[in-house]
Amino acid sequence: MRFAVLFMLSSLLDKKERRIVGLMSGTSADGIDAAIIELRQKEEEAVSVSLLAFDTISFPVGLRDRILEISDPEHGRVDDICRMHFVLGELFAEAAGAVSAAAGYSMADLDLIGSHGQTIHHLPDRVELFGVKTGATLQIGDPSVIAQRTGIVTVGDFRTADIARGGQGAPLVPYVDYLLFKHTEKARGLLNIGGIANMTVLPPDAGPKDVTAFDTGPGNMVIDTVSETLTDQSIDYGGEGARRGTVSDVLVKDMLDRPFFNLSPPKSTGRELFGRSYADCLLREGRKNKMSADDLLATATEITVRSIHDSYHRFVEPVTKLDELIVSGGGAKNTYLFESLAARMAPVKVMISDDYGLSSDAKEAVAFAILANQTIMGRPGNMPGATGADRMAILGKICLP
Amino acid sequence: MRFAVLFMLSSLLDKKERRIVGLMSGTSADGIDAAIIELRQKEEEAVSVSLLAFDTISFPVGLRDRILEISDPEHGRVDDICRMHFVLGELFAEAAGAVSAAAGYSMADLDLIGSHGQTIHHLPDRVELFGVKTGATLQIGDPSVIAQRTGIVTVGDFRTADIARGGQGAPLVPYVDYLLFKHTEKARGLLNIGGIANMTVLPPDAGPKDVTAFDTGPGNMVIDTVSETLTDQSIDYGGEGARRGTVSDVLVKDMLDRPFFNLSPPKSTGRELFGRSYADCLLREGRKNKMSADDLLATATEITVRSIHDSYHRFVEPVTKLDELIVSGGGAKNTYLFESLAARMAPVKVMISDDYGLSSDAKEAVAFAILANQTIMGRPGNMPGATGADRMAILGKICLP
Repeated sequence: MRFAVLFMLSSLLDKKERRIVGLMSGTSADGIDAAIIELRQKEEEAVSVSLLAFDTISFPVGLRDRILEISDPEHGRVDDICRMHFVLGELFAEAAGAVSAAAGYSMADLDLIGSHGQTIHHLPDRVELFGVKTGATLQIGDPSVIAQRTGIVTVGDFRTADIARGGQGAPLVPYVDYLLFKHTEKARGLLNIGGIANMTVLPPDAGPKDVTAFDTGPGNMVIDTVSETLTDQSIDYGGEGARRGTVSDVLVKDMLDRPFFNLSPPKSTGRELFGRSYADCLLREGRKNKMSADDLLATATEITVRSIHDSYHRFVEPVTKLDELIVSGGGAKNTYLFESLAARMAPVKVMISDDYGLSSDAKEAVAFAILANQTIMGRPGNMPGATGADRMAILGKICLP
Repeated sequence: MRFAVLFMLSSLLDKKERRIVGLMSGTSADGIDAAIIELRQKEEEAVSVSLLAFDTISFPVGLRDRILEISDPEHGRVDDICRMHFVLGELFAEAAGAVSAAAGYSMADLDLIGSHGQTIHHLPDRVELFGVKTGATLQIGDPSVIAQRTGIVTVGDFRTADIARGGQGAPLVPYVDYLLFKHTEKARGLLNIGGIANMTVLPPDAGPKDVTAFDTGPGNMVIDTVSETLTDQSIDYGGEGARRGTVSDVLVKDMLDRPFFNLSPPKSTGRELFGRSYADCLLREGRKNKMSADDLLATATEITVRSIHDSYHRFVEPVTKLDELIVSGGGAKNTYLFESLAARMAPVKVMISDDYGLSSDAKEAVAFAILANQTIMGRPGNMPGATGADRMAILGKICLP
């Protein structure tokens, strides 16, 4: 065993089926999504995965507030950031242990861990400072800690290499969409409806350079704010409120009259454009016109549906007529939203990610398990058509146990 | 080329001589030390190195202040830390380019980069937080940026794996001392005289577990403060002031009467014990006794010399009688200090690192080049007898270009 590192990696790569843990904590900092997949390496680029286990492990009491505090330029302290980098590393390692134990696996059954970390700051715009022009991003939860604690090769910190290549460091899921869903004959769209909705477009028989991805506008963000404000539920479960209400077409048209919707992709957005003040504008108009909570939920849902369809119709369809649109994210569970979208997207067949064996909840954690596999194979994980990077790059940092 | 990663690493490891860049910026944040070494892998554990080039690249104006600012819990902001992580990554990459170009090498001539990064916080004491007991450390200057910009495999962030193993994350140079200076018959000590002085002890024919390292006490820290305060020079060049002065034995004895000096190794210290207030105590006594600046420089120098010799005499000699003591660091250039130490340490032969072909200025940057080589071979880089870790570990994170 002359070079231990080669032995370690090649014994891992020689396996045709690899069990990989994916770990993710989102910007909402609610807890750790932990997935275990079995990944089968097929021909050169393709992989297929089965989800073996998934769980969301809650953070200890008070941790979410601490994460939000250290993420805030006015309150974050370097000593707290330094400490939390290691506390989160230990908690990610514990989460890997917990999801494995619950599913009956020991650490020895696992081949690899991919950990996204916890974003505490993201400044993708390129700014010049000390003679250097660069974007920036900061994920904490040290992957070396995960590797040492679990004894498993760990890949972490995926976004920085894309930033170094001039990209936005996000979204990174499109490469995974490409690996899992590309089809020789069918054109497929992947739609993730989180707070914001994002679409990945895979033309038939696509190569990596043919893939595009962009934000279509609000996903659940406006619907959730209306529900929180006007009802006693934080979200409109299953879209039941919206189903009872009546859409105001005038108001939908009014709310879609924003420059963002006219921009050509690639484009990305967030809480800055479609957060509280956008929802307040809708709520104000509703009050003025004496609309019921249900009417406003129906109208908010229609804004999401219409903005997704408009984006498709204007920017995608002229180039790539989709055969299928596969939906994931929290919005996939809003039956009314899903049905409205399916009706409007016809003849495109609208499906749910779960129909393809990939739970829509687990998708992001699964994505970082797959991206870790890309890294240890020496293959890229970013899509320039999605992030704006100047080329594809091998993402992440490899930590040996 | 089925697995690009194996091809990349094995073509690197198949070379018997590797050209490796080492990059380091110390806590004083004056600039980037950049070394290029040629490393020859000998039998299983041994390496020999030649220094091909070395330079210290100054930081742009204002950058040092910004680094000190973001390192300070009261003033550091997360958005500035996030930005500086990338700015420093770019500057480390530029430094690698600059030292290579000046020495006539192109990037294609180089095999590997090891980058220590810039420490902005170090909290090695294990504290319990959210149910997790851990130390912490934070180095910035993203190594993925260095890999992307230079096109060279880069290993960075070495200290975190040792912290994860319960160690202090420092010192990491003892493994390098062991690789370069272990001798089948001679017992060797390696003494680095920076602000603090640190000794690595290599018994004859030592294995990694036989190596110990500890801080002996102040190095240049007190001498520099006396010089800054009482003369118009920030350091006592060559020890010329001290050579003219007379040592106060009473005062030396008094200043060495501190609990730290009686502690058995392993032990480490810093500015907390031997910083401003320790020097102020010396200066106050000097004023009281109407001592000249030169007398105080002589006395401060004697404190360093005596504390090194006492440590050796009490803690090392009973176990390992040194044949040679090899000195590096800024203190190696203080001729008077060096001569005083050599006189006191007799019959131990006191040498300077440069006599062994390793410039004492370049030693730390060279150390991180060598530690990067350990990582890509899948070999450890920490010494439990130096850091207190529960075992040896493969340090660092591998970033592929």
